[in-house]
Amino acid sequence: MELEWLDNGGITAAKGFQASGTHAGLKRNKKDLALIFSEVPGAAAGVFTANQVKGAPLLISMPRVRAGRLQAMIINSGNANTCNGPAGLEDAQEMGRLTAEALGIPEETVLVSSTGVIGQRLPLAKIAAGIPEAVRRLSPAGGLDAAEAIMTTDTVPKQAALRFAPAPGEPPVTIGGIAKGSGMIHPQMATMLAFIGTDAYVAPPHLQEALRFAVDRSFNMISVDGDTSTNDMVVILANGQSGGAALLPGTPRFDRFREALAALCGRLARAIARDGEGATRLLEVRVKGARTEQDARLAARAIVASNLVKTAVFGNDANWGRIICAAGYSGAAFDPNRFDVYLGDLPVARDGGGLDFDEEQASRLLARDPVVITVDLRGGEGTATAWGCDFSYDYVRINANYRT
Amino acid sequence: MELEWLDNGGITAAKGFQASGTHAGLKRNKKDLALIFSEVPGAAAGVFTANQVKGAPLLISMPRVRAGRLQAMIINSGNANTCNGPAGLEDAQEMGRLTAEALGIPEETVLVSSTGVIGQRLPLAKIAAGIPEAVRRLSPAGGLDAAEAIMTTDTVPKQAALRFAPAPGEPPVTIGGIAKGSGMIHPQMATMLAFIGTDAYVAPPHLQEALRFAVDRSFNMISVDGDTSTNDMVVILANGQSGGAALLPGTPRFDRFREALAALCGRLARAIARDGEGATRLLEVRVKGARTEQDARLAARAIVASNLVKTAVFGNDANWGRIICAAGYSGAAFDPNRFDVYLGDLPVARDGGGLDFDEEQASRLLARDPVVITVDLRGGEGTATAWGCDFSYDYVRINANYRT
Repeated sequence: MELEWLDNGGITAAKGFQASGTHAGLKRNKKDLALIFSEVPGAAAGVFTANQVKGAPLLISMPRVRAGRLQAMIINSGNANTCNGPAGLEDAQEMGRLTAEALGIPEETVLVSSTGVIGQRLPLAKIAAGIPEAVRRLSPAGGLDAAEAIMTTDTVPKQAALRFAPAPGEPPVTIGGIAKGSGMIHPQMATMLAFIGTDAYVAPPHLQEALRFAVDRSFNMISVDGDTSTNDMVVILANGQSGGAALLPGTPRFDRFREALAALCGRLARAIARDGEGATRLLEVRVKGARTEQDARLAARAIVASNLVKTAVFGNDANWGRIICAAGYSGAAFDPNRFDVYLGDLPVARDGGGLDFDEEQASRLLARDPVVITVDLRGGEGTATAWGCDFSYDYVRINANYRT
Repeated sequence: MELEWLDNGGITAAKGFQASGTHAGLKRNKKDLALIFSEVPGAAAGVFTANQVKGAPLLISMPRVRAGRLQAMIINSGNANTCNGPAGLEDAQEMGRLTAEALGIPEETVLVSSTGVIGQRLPLAKIAAGIPEAVRRLSPAGGLDAAEAIMTTDTVPKQAALRFAPAPGEPPVTIGGIAKGSGMIHPQMATMLAFIGTDAYVAPPHLQEALRFAVDRSFNMISVDGDTSTNDMVVILANGQSGGAALLPGTPRFDRFREALAALCGRLARAIARDGEGATRLLEVRVKGARTEQDARLAARAIVASNLVKTAVFGNDANWGRIICAAGYSGAAFDPNRFDVYLGDLPVARDGGGLDFDEEQASRLLARDPVVITVDLRGGEGTATAWGCDFSYDYVRINANYRT
């Protein structure tokens, strides 16, 4: 299937989407309030954090997404509105109500999301004052502003968009999205913040099915620090404006949509991993030969999440023992006497044991961006890829004084 | 029960134990070969890593421990003898055979253990040359030398010993041990290296029961970096030389032994956590009010293992949101609206929400050694304590260039 990636495309790439990113005053100088708006209401689907402690915005937004219909998303950075008790819930609800009022749409079609420090009351007056401005600035060119407004410790905004044809001769479908995330990144059947808009025509349950497929292969395969946040969410809004017919599961048209969505999510997920707190480069771990796909995922995620693997990559140290050690405790079943390990294309271990390899060549391969590690467990057909980053002094610096 | 801690006591504190620590040449200058010897064979019990990839020494030693009888332990540092295939197994077996020969005891009563880099062949000639010297130097005063010889990135040797009376008027029982571990510390129903000797009289299955009890409350409750090593083991040898009667489960005498063993393991485990790679201080996390003890353990372990909590402690930043976030993804069930969090004695969150607290006071409490964090989940009677350390720049420095 041909995917046409749209340069500089983002959340407003699909037909009928507008966005804005403004400064409401939660952060000192930077944009901190993002608004995404579809000219018509559309189907909604979402995946939310597995953390038992969920931010107030999730408690408000989850039932709205489950109801299957959204028209707008309002997101602030600088404050997670989490662990604020009943007052936090009221604040999140009010943030959505004010947005609905300013847009003239039903409150239940507004998604509310927050990201930032946990346990501090949301400065609602600032948000209330900022919402009218966010609405005024809505524009089909506002996608990058919105991507900037959801950043916390991110160093770059993250957006992507692509176009594909569900079937020959059919109007193309566009999918665009923005994401944020840099620390507290270790999704468990959930993700960090990502918002996706498409003009595809898909009913909510089918949209949910496609999103789950895409998230399992993208956002759920990245790790920065092993911590699963309280506010993770990926939400998609499909407004049907492409002009094509409904996408139905079990058809090649739907499969193409699902694959395109997975490709878009994959690009956003890799952007998050590459921008991991303190990261100097992207780490890609490919596991093949696992007994099952699930085993491959377990092993790939454990390797990419290992502090010891990540510090070795930072130091360009070809310590493949740490790689297989992480696979060993991942829960994936494999024969410890049969695995092979590669750094880039260089074999460093075979049949469960080390090879004589050129340390300098290995160091050079580890200094590349991305660093690619491949582990062949030689026990089946299961494959999976996970993404993360190396672990540098800067991760410690950034996180030792996050609040103060 | 009264425990008498023995100053400077270690693996040779109990009656009938001798030890030595020598330099065989695996490391450049430091001691790298430890030998522990009981004048009579004794009951053995052990707990081994849950990692699927197990070092060759474990594959040789596990059946010997299961057979329940040991008289000596030979341990090298500087090389883990792991992922070396059949040759590694032969090397481990030979290391045990040579030790047995030099001591004049059956090969099956020698435990073999190795720690260091994974995937490099063990320099057996050096070990073979070192063993006679290790035997010559055996002495009741050799415990500290043995503790030094098992160190890798450890900055201090770790040993402890205590004495207690199983019943009034009975001869006292002594338990002594040494341990090592600094990185790759996140045991899962297993531990890093620890060797314990006691003159108690206990049959092997009962010794195993007592060791499991002690390990679950000590070594299995510490975390340095979330990585579970391939070579972890805790092994105890009980030679019955105290002169007391056999300790039988279901009796107060056995319960006292179990508690004393747990206390000894706890002290060694805290010594490992405090000496965690790059650590500047010990972190103690107490969870209470959990629905079950298992839930309390899950939450305590997740908090103590969180990179984000550990970096916040390093930075003296009272970011309690990260603490409860870690509890939230731990798998422990609790009501997110009812928990309390304390730093030292200072309440920072109550009823699931933040309190106004003095940031400077909180910073001072976080700068203490040990740092004590208490989380009350207010949903039951389950309690658990876990130990770890803060996360500093030095962890990255140490691990970026471990091999090179």
